[in-house]
Amino acid sequence: MNLLLLSNSRSPDGGYLDHAVELARELAGGRTKALFLPFAGVTTTWDEYTDKVRQALAPAGLALTGAHTVQAADIAAFELVIVGGGNTFQLTQQARQRGWLQAVRRSVAAGTPYMGWSAGANLACPTICTTNDMPIVDPGGFDALGLIDMQINPHYTNALPAGHQGETRDQRIAEFLAVRPEMKVIGLPEGDWLRVRGKQVQLGGPHPARVFQGGREAVEVTAPALLAG
Amino acid sequence: MNLLLLSNSRSPDGGYLDHAVELARELAGGRTKALFLPFAGVTTTWDEYTDKVRQALAPAGLALTGAHTVQAADIAAFELVIVGGGNTFQLTQQARQRGWLQAVRRSVAAGTPYMGWSAGANLACPTICTTNDMPIVDPGGFDALGLIDMQINPHYTNALPAGHQGETRDQRIAEFLAVRPEMKVIGLPEGDWLRVRGKQVQLGGPHPARVFQGGREAVEVTAPALLAG
Repeated sequence: MNLLLLSNSRSPDGGYLDHAVELARELAGGRTKALFLPFAGVTTTWDEYTDKVRQALAPAGLALTGAHTVQAADIAAFELVIVGGGNTFQLTQQARQRGWLQAVRRSVAAGTPYMGWSAGANLACPTICTTNDMPIVDPGGFDALGLIDMQINPHYTNALPAGHQGETRDQRIAEFLAVRPEMKVIGLPEGDWLRVRGKQVQLGGPHPARVFQGGREAVEVTAPALLAG
Repeated sequence: MNLLLLSNSRSPDGGYLDHAVELARELAGGRTKALFLPFAGVTTTWDEYTDKVRQALAPAGLALTGAHTVQAADIAAFELVIVGGGNTFQLTQQARQRGWLQAVRRSVAAGTPYMGWSAGANLACPTICTTNDMPIVDPGGFDALGLIDMQINPHYTNALPAGHQGETRDQRIAEFLAVRPEMKVIGLPEGDWLRVRGKQVQLGGPHPARVFQGGREAVEVTAPALLAG
């Protein structure tokens, strides 16, 4: 596997995908023909979303085609897969219905690099069960691409708005681990990413991440750090 | 329909279900035999959860039986249905698998009062699509009891932790309305509730709620206010 999984589309002080350009260039390794899955976009059109990402990643040498304009059977035409953030449920539903789940899984297993942020990072995990998104549509199953064997919680923070009594993020992740104690969850703060090469999972970025496992205390980890492999 | 749907289990300055006791007494109207669905509880046992609510609602004259200790076919033995908060996905999954979705829907349609908070308020809606919870298990469908014809977003606030770049609650609700523009969503702040009598839906509580509809500006509403009927 050759993956770049980012928490979100911005570093705290940067513009849209600014912090991702050099990382994307390194991931691509000279490849240029990129497939972009815009299906997480809900309040934007998929054309607009694809254009926005196309412009942001042009400096990385990538040329994007929106997956809504081609068929999953065409996947062999692409050298890189990019999956944008937005709503994880709609992303999973559309990717499943259009045949991209299976096509992307096979292509990435065969060596095609994969880049995703936010919902696109959730989709790379075994399930979408650690998304923060609102379940606006039924995705037809919570299973996802399974490109890594751990779960990512993007936009990770344990803070709540002042006075709020809802569950904290750590409580939500503890609920997930109560029903799936065999799983590992990476709380990935905004601005951070995972770089996966084969079985090696490396944490990158400016902020400490948090690693949660069933029946253990959560552990804070500072980049650069090897999380697996 | 005779419903009491609370945003959460605490008023901002009160103890557990303190603000619900008088409301529950009025809803019950002298009925005492209450069925309690504890299935939203994940990091507590259902026995413990039932005991906690039993003690909290004893001052309202209610005697609780945990739904995990009886069968859905026994629903006629109960005069009131109470559904506690926690994880909406596990609540819906368990209620569906154990036959309670259908049993409760029929019983409440026939006049049995229903009280729910947080996940228990979500369950009363047409779908669970406006929950804030993490999707830790697949509920086997996002359809819920459909006791009212609008969606509740419990623990409503539009605030984010300082510096956070994830979606605001209003953006999440806008995403839901983008795919379901025919729906109405009530953003119900902590400490507030809806009291439903027949087709009448009354807002109660100390804080302004927000009413969201597809293609319209959201409207702030202060209790007491009639939201339907």
